[in-house]
Amino acid sequence: MSRICVDMDEVMADTLAEHLRRYNQAFDEEVTLEDLAGKGLWEYTPLDRKEQLRAFLDAEDFFEDLPLMPGAQEVLRELSKRFEIFIATQAMAVPNSLGPKYRWLQRHFPFIPPSHYVFCGDKGILSADYLIDDQPRNLLRFNGQGLLFTAPHNLAIAGFVRVSNWQEIAEYFQTVT
Amino acid sequence: MSRICVDMDEVMADTLAEHLRRYNQAFDEEVTLEDLAGKGLWEYTPLDRKEQLRAFLDAEDFFEDLPLMPGAQEVLRELSKRFEIFIATQAMAVPNSLGPKYRWLQRHFPFIPPSHYVFCGDKGILSADYLIDDQPRNLLRFNGQGLLFTAPHNLAIAGFVRVSNWQEIAEYFQTVT
Repeated sequence: MSRICVDMDEVMADTLAEHLRRYNQAFDEEVTLEDLAGKGLWEYTPLDRKEQLRAFLDAEDFFEDLPLMPGAQEVLRELSKRFEIFIATQAMAVPNSLGPKYRWLQRHFPFIPPSHYVFCGDKGILSADYLIDDQPRNLLRFNGQGLLFTAPHNLAIAGFVRVSNWQEIAEYFQTVT
Repeated sequence: MSRICVDMDEVMADTLAEHLRRYNQAFDEEVTLEDLAGKGLWEYTPLDRKEQLRAFLDAEDFFEDLPLMPGAQEVLRELSKRFEIFIATQAMAVPNSLGPKYRWLQRHFPFIPPSHYVFCGDKGILSADYLIDDQPRNLLRFNGQGLLFTAPHNLAIAGFVRVSNWQEIAEYFQTVT
């Protein structure tokens, strides 16, 4: 049975939506996803606001209640019948996220056992056949087949197999055994 | 550069010493390491105390201040000059341990970057050349070369390359490149 590793932020969870919501609220702005095309919120944000941008992530409640990416639950539930699914998330850069991420996964993905959660940093440590991730740098360090999940920050990046949403992930794995 | 994964509990941290201390205190006993030879604390503990034994681990402070295994710091500091060191710990069975384990590693092993911490369940997910672990079941799921770190519960287990302490780990890796 092939093994698929799935990234959390901006793949399973719409982390950017919550980040953007807090940004707009704090700075009384109305930045949209379209404004972030090709760069993402980090590059878009002026230097004197980057500290605050980081502080949003460090808040105890940031990762507790992130919205789900559309289709993530349904497609992963189906894939988990044919593949070994592991969740691989870069949690170590934001240690406050460890507990909230654990609880979020249990709440929304009860069909994936906690023994298949991997909270890590460097994704080169993963032994798996596939990795679905929005970060090109994670895919570059991974040894198996990477799938780049489309996000505003990676729109201009070429050279990866790309999936734009969970429906495309379902289609990709339809012919994979 | 070869990659070594190192387990935390009973390899880097003397988790058993703290577990035993709380056990003896709670039940007014004087159980020693010798009493646990060949079985470990879980097998030794009578059925009606196992719930409490588990509750010790779930306590918020259990993993905050575990004693170090003798030599772990010194030997890992040396090995980190010649090998890529990752810490791989089964944290998912005790979610309260996630934050404390992160802080403990930062305090005692500042020379290992958090990007090299892996909080996981199933150690079959690790892509590495070596795994040092006290649990035979973890070594069996690992794809590389396993080293069984001696603990009371694994004394009777055969069939693994065994290291009894950190000095023996240093010696093992002296001739490895």
